[in-house]
Amino acid sequence: MNQITEKAAKVLQKVRDHSPLVHNITNYVTVNDCANALLAVGASPIMADDLEEAADIASISSALVLNIGTLNRRTVESMLAAGKKANEMGVPVVLDPVGAGASDLRNRTVMKLLEQVHMTVLRGNLSEMSFLAGMQSATKGVDAADSDKRNDAVSVAVSAAKKYGCTAAVTGAVDVLSDGDRVVKIHSGHPMLSCVTGTGCMTSALTGACIAVTNVSLDAAAAAVAAMGIAGELAYESAGAKGTGSYHIAVIDALSRLNPILFEERAKLDEA
Amino acid sequence: MNQITEKAAKVLQKVRDHSPLVHNITNYVTVNDCANALLAVGASPIMADDLEEAADIASISSALVLNIGTLNRRTVESMLAAGKKANEMGVPVVLDPVGAGASDLRNRTVMKLLEQVHMTVLRGNLSEMSFLAGMQSATKGVDAADSDKRNDAVSVAVSAAKKYGCTAAVTGAVDVLSDGDRVVKIHSGHPMLSCVTGTGCMTSALTGACIAVTNVSLDAAAAAVAAMGIAGELAYESAGAKGTGSYHIAVIDALSRLNPILFEERAKLDEA
Amino acid sequence: MNQITEKAAKVLQKVRDHSPLVHNITNYVTVNDCANALLAVGASPIMADDLEEAADIASISSALVLNIGTLNRRTVESMLAAGKKANEMGVPVVLDPVGAGASDLRNRTVMKLLEQVHMTVLRGNLSEMSFLAGMQSATKGVDAADSDKRNDAVSVAVSAAKKYGCTAAVTGAVDVLSDGDRVVKIHSGHPMLSCVTGTGCMTSALTGACIAVTNVSLDAAAAAVAAMGIAGELAYESAGAKGTGSYHIAVIDALSRLNPILFEERAKLDEA
Repeated sequence: MNQITEKAAKVLQKVRDHSPLVHNITNYVTVNDCANALLAVGASPIMADDLEEAADIASISSALVLNIGTLNRRTVESMLAAGKKANEMGVPVVLDPVGAGASDLRNRTVMKLLEQVHMTVLRGNLSEMSFLAGMQSATKGVDAADSDKRNDAVSVAVSAAKKYGCTAAVTGAVDVLSDGDRVVKIHSGHPMLSCVTGTGCMTSALTGACIAVTNVSLDAAAAAVAAMGIAGELAYESAGAKGTGSYHIAVIDALSRLNPILFEERAKLDEA
Repeated sequence: MNQITEKAAKVLQKVRDHSPLVHNITNYVTVNDCANALLAVGASPIMADDLEEAADIASISSALVLNIGTLNRRTVESMLAAGKKANEMGVPVVLDPVGAGASDLRNRTVMKLLEQVHMTVLRGNLSEMSFLAGMQSATKGVDAADSDKRNDAVSVAVSAAKKYGCTAAVTGAVDVLSDGDRVVKIHSGHPMLSCVTGTGCMTSALTGACIAVTNVSLDAAAAAVAAMGIAGELAYESAGAKGTGSYHIAVIDALSRLNPILFEERAKLDEA
Repeated sequence: MNQITEKAAKVLQKVRDHSPLVHNITNYVTVNDCANALLAVGASPIMADDLEEAADIASISSALVLNIGTLNRRTVESMLAAGKKANEMGVPVVLDPVGAGASDLRNRTVMKLLEQVHMTVLRGNLSEMSFLAGMQSATKGVDAADSDKRNDAVSVAVSAAKKYGCTAAVTGAVDVLSDGDRVVKIHSGHPMLSCVTGTGCMTSALTGACIAVTNVSLDAAAAAVAAMGIAGELAYESAGAKGTGSYHIAVIDALSRLNPILFEERAKLDEA
């Protein structure tokens, strides 16, 4: 077993040991799955998006996850307030730029968030992350467009990480993560994950749980992304033949059963 | 196999082949199921309800689905903007008038939407559709009231279709669809579908996917309504005895496994 | 079988017989589960949170459930309007003070709701209910903090009930309910319920269904709390080993299969 796998396994164990409170300002499509995924790995989710409490809740949390899936003016203000407070308090922040590239509102919002809040981890698909890295691409809705495959995930991850001084996670068939220096590739995962809404959002939420228990943001992101990939594989084995509804549930099941031994057996991570 | 069944099967296959982007401005109760139902049949969902992006997203989508389940002033404005833009761009629009008849707000909203946006398909239960057709009825919450059975679904569907120049789908134990000229009845379905929230909303979302790939709105609506009916039957066979939670998941499973052969074997459609 | 068990079983049967309309102004995290839990026990859910219809919907409903899980200024106004209307019309009101103690906004909101609306039942965990009873405690997010175990659930339930002239349900490993006079303890339940988000919210929603069919609020709350506890046990037996995703679904399954015989066999209620 290589070093990054071992580190990621330890991060996940630490989540179970410490049960960090993870504050999510997220979309109403996949919010239930995000909360249940966090509970499944042992973290404690709180969803709170009103401006009058966003900063208060961020300040008592161990991580903040911002997800613009169904952004609106009200919640964007809350994201900014919570993000700034988190920065002040040293609470790590994860940004999931859902659909960046798909509308002016999303583009402007992502830019505003990145200008006003220092993000610890950015997690998105290749379209979204290419947009953030300034390597413009056409986004088809909230899912990755095939045309974006022209961008090399490694260069997108490294560029985004350097540009924003953070860890960037570009998830896809092979996930590529970078902190601008190190590069980690993750080969765990299953194509059926893209047949269920929210697997990306859940990965971002899990990244919040992991970054809450370690200062090494690349290890945290690797742990979260690999955990979701492994859950996707286990779910396929147990429920893939039944259909996407059962598969969805089996992903949560697998997250809840994940432990260091299973993680180390299954994880296909390598650091370049 | 009759002609309407064959046409409906082809529509569903086209959804899988083209994976149309379907924009939903919908309620927060069943939105996750709507997204997963769309993914299950091969479509690509996007949920976006802010006024600042609603028209932009509608204009890049292949269909727009408006659902007033948890309407509020903010999202009604977005529905109007997205609907008008869709009309301008030739993007078909589906309206699900959830709970029409249950409150003044719902009644006024539905009327405003129908005045300002041309709908391609209206889909609701007998109470809701009777209200739209001007054949007033008492709605008990968001579910069909028994008292409404006095209205004949055929006359409601035909009246609503003629009144609004669209296809009207009145779903119930027997589903009745009309474009004002043709009438299609669908006998597929299972009573257990009414024990899960969102099966109506999902049917409307699926109608969006189907209308995205054909110009014949009656065929599209028939494909979507029959798909949900068949999924309801298959789910009952595989999971009905376990309870309504498993049944809910099995409905999504069945949608994801649906293919033309299974559809044609199971579909009970006929055109009068 | 003791008297309280018999009464609770009858309340649940009455819910199936009368299918009361239950109006929920609730959070977007667990709203789908609340609707499906209500359908599972035979009630008819309606979720409506806009100020322009909240009072109208409350006035046609048989119970109103207010849940501040993801409160915001807009929906708090709707809760106040619906609550006042419900009081006027004699419609019973349930309050779930999610995360009371966790932020100033939640504390102020709960106090405002309690000042302006007479609640029939309050249901929360020990942290939340201690806050309401004026026996201040530190809340860790939306889940019960261990430190709160210093407060005795019986004294919290009795104090809250007396202070607000209502039934207070303090749910936890052992649930304690009081109307200020009688005290009921419920030993049904399973620790795995805390690994799924929304089991508390669902219990509050079910309390709405039960209070809709009886004037004895303590019996209603006991029926709802015991139903969830039994469902938690049955779900563990059927799906606990699979993981928290399957367990979640199995809870809904169990609610949908619950009947008086099963309830009376399983229920562990006693009245002091």
